[in-house]
Amino acid sequence: MNNYPSILLSDAVEQMASLPGVGRKTALRLVLHLLRQSDKDVDAFTGALSRLKQEVKYCKVCHTISDQDICSICQSHSRDKHIVCVVENVQDVMSIENTGQYNGLYHVLGGIISPMDGVGPSDIEIDSLIKRVEQDEIHEVILALPTTMEGDTTNFYIYRRLQNITKGDNPSSPNSLKISQIARGVAIGNEIEYTDEITLGRSIVNRIEFKL
Amino acid sequence: MNNYPSILLSDAVEQMASLPGVGRKTALRLVLHLLRQSDKDVDAFTGALSRLKQEVKYCKVCHTISDQDICSICQSHSRDKHIVCVVENVQDVMSIENTGQYNGLYHVLGGIISPMDGVGPSDIEIDSLIKRVEQDEIHEVILALPTTMEGDTTNFYIYRRLQNITKGDNPSSPNSLKISQIARGVAIGNEIEYTDEITLGRSIVNRIEFKL
Repeated sequence: MNNYPSILLSDAVEQMASLPGVGRKTALRLVLHLLRQSDKDVDAFTGALSRLKQEVKYCKVCHTISDQDICSICQSHSRDKHIVCVVENVQDVMSIENTGQYNGLYHVLGGIISPMDGVGPSDIEIDSLIKRVEQDEIHEVILALPTTMEGDTTNFYIYRRLQNITKGDNPSSPNSLKISQIARGVAIGNEIEYTDEITLGRSIVNRIEFKL
Repeated sequence: MNNYPSILLSDAVEQMASLPGVGRKTALRLVLHLLRQSDKDVDAFTGALSRLKQEVKYCKVCHTISDQDICSICQSHSRDKHIVCVVENVQDVMSIENTGQYNGLYHVLGGIISPMDGVGPSDIEIDSLIKRVEQDEIHEVILALPTTMEGDTTNFYIYRRLQNITKGDNPSSPNSLKISQIARGVAIGNEIEYTDEITLGRSIVNRIEFKL
């Protein structure tokens, strides 16, 4: 697919194919789909993307995407302001919100520490997290980062930084800040037989008391 | 994924998810990818799509997408103007061009006859095809439509129309127009064992002489 009958078409396909996971054949299909829509629909499509790029804001507290300077979660009076859940990105906030199981605040790092990709602690929002924990009345930090090597590295780094500051600030009560991480184990609905060895091994080591 | 933290984000995802085969999760991933690009890159993306929609032309002869009133294939002096290949859409033109096996002209119907979808002969570019064959010096029409029920219906309809006009115009030589269709059979590289029965059956009935 390289003999485009029109430069306009070729440009549009080129742009569409720049999206992750969109190949040239798919890009052509998507572009021709748009071409069949009305002028108004195409304007709505390109307009929504342009507006998002131009007008989007990031919450000054938790760094999630927002329409205002402070996001609706940080502004909400019904959320528990003593708990902060640390996540890698905006999608993770949405995923956790969709569970309906969490009522605290968030802190979006905007990435995780990954020396292979040249991402160090200063490239992501760790300093602002430490500052938040120091300044605000936060009793618990939940680490909800990916269960990968990079996630573990970031967890460990944040844990060390948090440990230091709480000890420094409150020498009398070094354990005033609770640091937890999300449970790792066999996913709900999965067969033991088909669970990978590392997950299964850890789920045995980290077993919890059975309660009725 | 329905608790979007921003209306701008929600609108953009909505639009992206309107593309065929793009679900909400994928749409969110694509939108957030765009959001990470520079302003210039996002402008290039939306600009290319807007420009295509606003400025695209369709060749007045063969109805393919073009930057000019007459497309480059119809204008080319190196193409055989006596052969017209009838296809359903622009992608088909590009697919056949990419084979490098065809040097004639095209005629894009812009659809195929499909009573189930309410598409009749007058909804697609059949009349203009008949006119072209009547007026231009066309010696062969190749039907390259999908090998589906709708494709066969359209083939049959076009065949009947073409038969009538050539007989009417040249009563002395009723066979002056050759009407062919692309070969159907076992795809190259396929095992006989795994070829479907209808294709295999037709490939035996329509066998051709083996030549060395």
